[in-house]
Amino acid sequence: MLNFSLMGAGRIGKMHAANISLHPSCNLSYVYDVNKDFANQVAKENNAKVAESPEEAINSDDVNVVFIASATPTHVDFITMGAKAGKAIFCEKPIDLDINKVNHCYETIKNFDVPIQIGFNRRFDNSHNKVKAAKDSGEIGNLEMIIITSRDPEPPGLDYLKAAGGFFRDTTIHDFDLSRFVLNDDPIIEVSAYGSQLISPECKEVGDHDTAMFIMRSKKNVLIHINNSRRAVYGYDQRLEVFGSKGMMISNNQSSTSVEVFNDKFTNAKDPIHFFFIERYDQAYKDQLNDFVNTVLNNKKPSVTFEDGRNALILANAAYESFESGKSVKVNFS
Amino acid sequence: MLNFSLMGAGRIGKMHAANISLHPSCNLSYVYDVNKDFANQVAKENNAKVAESPEEAINSDDVNVVFIASATPTHVDFITMGAKAGKAIFCEKPIDLDINKVNHCYETIKNFDVPIQIGFNRRFDNSHNKVKAAKDSGEIGNLEMIIITSRDPEPPGLDYLKAAGGFFRDTTIHDFDLSRFVLNDDPIIEVSAYGSQLISPECKEVGDHDTAMFIMRSKKNVLIHINNSRRAVYGYDQRLEVFGSKGMMISNNQSSTSVEVFNDKFTNAKDPIHFFFIERYDQAYKDQLNDFVNTVLNNKKPSVTFEDGRNALILANAAYESFESGKSVKVNFS
Amino acid sequence: MLNFSLMGAGRIGKMHAANISLHPSCNLSYVYDVNKDFANQVAKENNAKVAESPEEAINSDDVNVVFIASATPTHVDFITMGAKAGKAIFCEKPIDLDINKVNHCYETIKNFDVPIQIGFNRRFDNSHNKVKAAKDSGEIGNLEMIIITSRDPEPPGLDYLKAAGGFFRDTTIHDFDLSRFVLNDDPIIEVSAYGSQLISPECKEVGDHDTAMFIMRSKKNVLIHINNSRRAVYGYDQRLEVFGSKGMMISNNQSSTSVEVFNDKFTNAKDPIHFFFIERYDQAYKDQLNDFVNTVLNNKKPSVTFEDGRNALILANAAYESFESGKSVKVNFS
Amino acid sequence: MLNFSLMGAGRIGKMHAANISLHPSCNLSYVYDVNKDFANQVAKENNAKVAESPEEAINSDDVNVVFIASATPTHVDFITMGAKAGKAIFCEKPIDLDINKVNHCYETIKNFDVPIQIGFNRRFDNSHNKVKAAKDSGEIGNLEMIIITSRDPEPPGLDYLKAAGGFFRDTTIHDFDLSRFVLNDDPIIEVSAYGSQLISPECKEVGDHDTAMFIMRSKKNVLIHINNSRRAVYGYDQRLEVFGSKGMMISNNQSSTSVEVFNDKFTNAKDPIHFFFIERYDQAYKDQLNDFVNTVLNNKKPSVTFEDGRNALILANAAYESFESGKSVKVNFS
Repeated sequence: MLNFSLMGAGRIGKMHAANISLHPSCNLSYVYDVNKDFANQVAKENNAKVAESPEEAINSDDVNVVFIASATPTHVDFITMGAKAGKAIFCEKPIDLDINKVNHCYETIKNFDVPIQIGFNRRFDNSHNKVKAAKDSGEIGNLEMIIITSRDPEPPGLDYLKAAGGFFRDTTIHDFDLSRFVLNDDPIIEVSAYGSQLISPECKEVGDHDTAMFIMRSKKNVLIHINNSRRAVYGYDQRLEVFGSKGMMISNNQSSTSVEVFNDKFTNAKDPIHFFFIERYDQAYKDQLNDFVNTVLNNKKPSVTFEDGRNALILANAAYESFESGKSVKVNFS
Repeated sequence: MLNFSLMGAGRIGKMHAANISLHPSCNLSYVYDVNKDFANQVAKENNAKVAESPEEAINSDDVNVVFIASATPTHVDFITMGAKAGKAIFCEKPIDLDINKVNHCYETIKNFDVPIQIGFNRRFDNSHNKVKAAKDSGEIGNLEMIIITSRDPEPPGLDYLKAAGGFFRDTTIHDFDLSRFVLNDDPIIEVSAYGSQLISPECKEVGDHDTAMFIMRSKKNVLIHINNSRRAVYGYDQRLEVFGSKGMMISNNQSSTSVEVFNDKFTNAKDPIHFFFIERYDQAYKDQLNDFVNTVLNNKKPSVTFEDGRNALILANAAYESFESGKSVKVNFS
Repeated sequence: MLNFSLMGAGRIGKMHAANISLHPSCNLSYVYDVNKDFANQVAKENNAKVAESPEEAINSDDVNVVFIASATPTHVDFITMGAKAGKAIFCEKPIDLDINKVNHCYETIKNFDVPIQIGFNRRFDNSHNKVKAAKDSGEIGNLEMIIITSRDPEPPGLDYLKAAGGFFRDTTIHDFDLSRFVLNDDPIIEVSAYGSQLISPECKEVGDHDTAMFIMRSKKNVLIHINNSRRAVYGYDQRLEVFGSKGMMISNNQSSTSVEVFNDKFTNAKDPIHFFFIERYDQAYKDQLNDFVNTVLNNKKPSVTFEDGRNALILANAAYESFESGKSVKVNFS
Repeated sequence: MLNFSLMGAGRIGKMHAANISLHPSCNLSYVYDVNKDFANQVAKENNAKVAESPEEAINSDDVNVVFIASATPTHVDFITMGAKAGKAIFCEKPIDLDINKVNHCYETIKNFDVPIQIGFNRRFDNSHNKVKAAKDSGEIGNLEMIIITSRDPEPPGLDYLKAAGGFFRDTTIHDFDLSRFVLNDDPIIEVSAYGSQLISPECKEVGDHDTAMFIMRSKKNVLIHINNSRRAVYGYDQRLEVFGSKGMMISNNQSSTSVEVFNDKFTNAKDPIHFFFIERYDQAYKDQLNDFVNTVLNNKKPSVTFEDGRNALILANAAYESFESGKSVKVNFS
């Protein structure tokens, strides 16, 4: 049985708390949040204690795992504290918005030999996974193109946008990681980025994009396209298309029912797809936790490493450089 | 080059005329219709002559083929005249509504060795055909069930209903034949029929059904279900499902475009399916003609025989007997 | 918090035990099974006690709910014992295979005013439910036809078949209930049944069917078709089609992923559908439990009553009468 | 009745000849091809004369329309000759591979007021058209993204590749035009291009790409993505996705049947999609001809102008500039 401290009790922290509580090998011991009301509620719902400070949550002797779902600026500090305390660490993406802070954190923690996993949940989605496995097994032949469509149902509010670090680092980062996941040992070497402000006045106000497209090239000359939007009225559009010499596999959208409607206006109409990440990636979040628990209990290498988190940020930064310079940018992961 | 006389220039005759005109081995010579305006128009559109009488159309020396698309009560007479004149004959379903007249016609014409094909167009639909071929090739294993869904877009008018001979003989007859087509050499031995009056006041007025369901059993104990309606607001619903020990194949509905719509109400919505038989079976009607031309030119056995037309009528009659008696009825094709 | 005694710890009992354990308002207190090993294992997995006798499980003071998932012949006894002990009762379908025993049980328990719900799980499937709701709300207009396709992935073994009471009472009973669920207050008045032995030597050995088709008529002249098979190689085929004056809704099959495969042989190929009822109706079983808990805690009328269980059996019996007599049989629910 | 001279009797010329012959307002008078055998065969099949020279085909008094389907390097000459002879002109894409020749041709012919239409057939596909119409009508709200997937089934041979002018000018040019068609009066202002050599040794030999991706930006900041491949084993992949503030519409692929296969390996598998452009765009080619005939007979402005042909080439050239410079390139249509 692993005892968890949950850092952050907002929307996603609340979901993680419920998954931890349901897992047969996990116990939620502490909940910490700067917002005490949030912490109290999540602690109460899951029979956990409220930690008065990050230190209490992270350093308590009975805690095995620090699970970080707090605001991005706190990630690096909590990771460092957890590593120093010898705890296993799970941290939501992104590690940080500043590559220098990420690098510094990396230098600090590498002497503390603790498992650390980054929360790229999409790697655990059964459908995306099946596509990736088919690519690895050779079922689609030589890989030639990857197309990722990733659109949120609605734009976030101004406060979120101010802190989020920009569309590419906040949202596309998932798609950069998913591209790397499918490519496996074939690194991305080049990226071009386009962004637009078409949807959200709040995005415009903070100088952020709400619509974006990317092309990337891997070392083996696979071409990758990503397109993102902050608003899709039909729900959280999450598609992964992988194309190769033997065919194509698509991980398609999912609806909550399998009903099809036929009337005098249209036929075969399905329900709107899942609203957002908590519904769409429900299975993935649970399996991600299970995978992490398995890693900790069996001393395995984490499935998604600190380097994976760092590399996705490097791609986002290269994308910004491309957008600003109007050039295709070579990616340097070193 | 085959010279055709077209008997009947109504909705379906008009369509056949256009197909005959387009066929490289066919020439439309004469058009006959009791309604002179209809005959004139179709003849004009296809550079054909108007025949003043059935005799002129059928007996003229330069005519090779009598193509019968006139009202059902005229079929037997025109078939007999055509056979006596030694012409190849194509006749729309049904041969007649009265099995005695059909039998008598059969006795009369069998001494005149002319090719005669009955217009069960669905046998020529590429999709239905692919399903039938898969059954024949063993791709679906041992045949166990056939499910036919066949629903018209809207009920016909009172005049049509008065002459049509009843829902089972007019409409289901296509599905009886399609069942026999898939079953091939395994004869249907038993039928149960249910009918309802739910849709059309005109149907009720003439004592006809507008909604019906059937179960049939073949000699090899394959079970067959047919369901029919005189009104489907989403279009002409034509589905054939064939189920066996190795799997299932469905010949599904078709829309005029491949567009899918996603909005805040629904996703993946397609266009309404094809409105009615002329749109849905366009390819089938053309290939039916081509098959018939090939039969005549190469002295082959017709793909759909007079016996096929007679057997479908026998099934319709057995279905009526089942409906009226509330019993499962044994089918006697002899 | 409700304390449950689970009667029966076989395949389906095991699943129910896990759902009860996960439910926030439920506690699994006792597990009883004639097979002690089964009882021990399920009790252990769910922190419950093993009951030495049905009496211990049912009569213990701390038990609120008797949850019956044992072999069919035990149902009536356990229901009666539970009712006499004043417990809330949930009983898997069928109540019994003998209508006389069902009627006698009904007479006995009606004086004990306990809630009793029958396990027709399909009523709780989100997709079937959406179709039923659309029919109730008028979205599909006047109801005209219901088509139910229900095929198991593979036939059961000889022992199961000997005790199961026949295909219509064991399997089709779900579809009879689903038909009644959609029809709501419009009773079924007539049924015709066809059965075949095409698949399973074991079925033949016990004189049971493995392939079956049914037509039923409701009082309002809605026509209902059901088709059943004991073996579908592509998985547990569960489809509900409801057709009316404003259109059609289909509750379609579901796969475990949303992946589509395109290669040189075929396109848009999906995974096999869910293997069997435990996977397919996972959500339904959970929501069924939740609904029942809600019924008990809030003194509501059960969603699926003893009468519903009895009426489904009456339909199965009428179907057997039709099969044996070759007649359409009038249904008498009184 | 319009009399046509067909220039070029290769694969696509042959198809155009058949469509012209079938059209009620068209007569195929002359066929010209440098390969006399080709010319003879197509002339014979369509009851046309073989022209001994381009001059005979273009200048003959009884010719109304010059239909150019010959090799690209001949287009400009034949257009110019046709214009000088006062004939209506239809010319397959591309006008030429050299923008200077295109500009010079434009200068030359603009004084001869003849209708000239360029063969961007995809604009006439019913499905693409429905998507474009939905965008124009506001059904999808404000346009934000266009995604075009366009993949050939198999790479062409070395001879074709040597003359084709490069992947972007030969193939992507259709997608550049389709983007412009959807955008309508919102011009493309910027383009980035990536190309790879992954598939075809012949492509590599001539220094051409076989895999490519593009991002473009319109003046209104709509983002457009195109991806191309010279080989898709599942057929000619042609998809158009248009995304806006009110939803998304996709013009999806099409198969030759509506059959779905279910077995122990997969479910819902459809036939491979149409093999190549002649099958996929059959309806579009016919409607393109009909539209052009309508333009000529009624003195209307051509639906696809010389400028459209020129602008697509300018986009292809800008794409090459982007690929070679590694920069996003501003597009200059003037």
